[in-house]
Amino acid sequence: MSISPILDNLSRALTALPGVGRRSANRHALYLLQNRDDAAQLISTLSQALEKLSPCSKCRNLCEGELCSICQDPYRSCETLCVVERLADLQAFERGGAYRGRYFVLGGVLSPLDGVGPEQLGIPDLLRLCHTENVSEVILAMGSSSEGEATAHFLDQALGASAVRRTRLARGIPMGAELEYMDENTLSRALEARSTI
Amino acid sequence: MSISPILDNLSRALTALPGVGRRSANRHALYLLQNRDDAAQLISTLSQALEKLSPCSKCRNLCEGELCSICQDPYRSCETLCVVERLADLQAFERGGAYRGRYFVLGGVLSPLDGVGPEQLGIPDLLRLCHTENVSEVILAMGSSSEGEATAHFLDQALGASAVRRTRLARGIPMGAELEYMDENTLSRALEARSTI
Repeated sequence: MSISPILDNLSRALTALPGVGRRSANRHALYLLQNRDDAAQLISTLSQALEKLSPCSKCRNLCEGELCSICQDPYRSCETLCVVERLADLQAFERGGAYRGRYFVLGGVLSPLDGVGPEQLGIPDLLRLCHTENVSEVILAMGSSSEGEATAHFLDQALGASAVRRTRLARGIPMGAELEYMDENTLSRALEARSTI
Repeated sequence: MSISPILDNLSRALTALPGVGRRSANRHALYLLQNRDDAAQLISTLSQALEKLSPCSKCRNLCEGELCSICQDPYRSCETLCVVERLADLQAFERGGAYRGRYFVLGGVLSPLDGVGPEQLGIPDLLRLCHTENVSEVILAMGSSSEGEATAHFLDQALGASAVRRTRLARGIPMGAELEYMDENTLSRALEARSTI
């Protein structure tokens, strides 16, 4: 089956990408070797990104230089800090544009079995930041997985000693969703948290 | 929404991969920047593959050096030549292991509107090969798209002048398939081409 071990190595490297299995990786590898301009473009943009982008020293967003554009923006409030699991979550909030505070990117969730503790998620830096920047509210915007919930709980405890207010995202029916297709958990949460019109 | 134009460039380069849209490309880009070892591995394997692999001078399979392992294999018959659209099709035949002849990889199908003519598919080389290697049978193993059929028809005509036998893959019900889910076209072809038990 194998055309060459060199091709196999490339395929294996491509399976590292999220959601890319052996078959897609092979397809990507063949595509890249048959479209050399695209492959060269990928190498050059990826090399440049690896060289130029690094975590923001304050919020762990990716940026060129020391501080990211959000942390540098004087019009964004330092009082509210939104803690997210991943960079993609930060991007999702920014697409909306409704949030005008700052962020902190954990880069994952607590998972002691995989060796991911508070240190790996930068939680000591987060606590220090809350103190030095006079943060008054921390939004714990973790996902609703059990690890996400556990991480939010841990942060809630860790911040408990300070005067900072801890909030979380509202649970409920997403906009435009059909009730019929909602899971029971979401429905009962939405019922509980119902509001007067 | 955009974290950095450098990240956007990387995402754009990743959308070139088959089946990767803007969202997946962004996800891949963030993954690579957060998993630098995997990114470095991708750059090094891809650079090596681009440097070392090139089309086989006989059959246009990818290989290191002048001739691919299939063309070099003295146990494989030169008499039968299987013409495929893409490298992935060659891989599919090789996975099975039933075919012991040689190949010719077109690298696409005829598509005059996109500027893909016989030259681009190496058809002159293919005709020369049939002559010099004393090929007695050419299997036209194109896909069943209309472009694939047109390419097979063109090759059939082009080879018509020589004594070479032209064959095509059997059409019928795939192994293990449920008749109920077969399309009418496949069913009627399978009926037409029925064989005595």
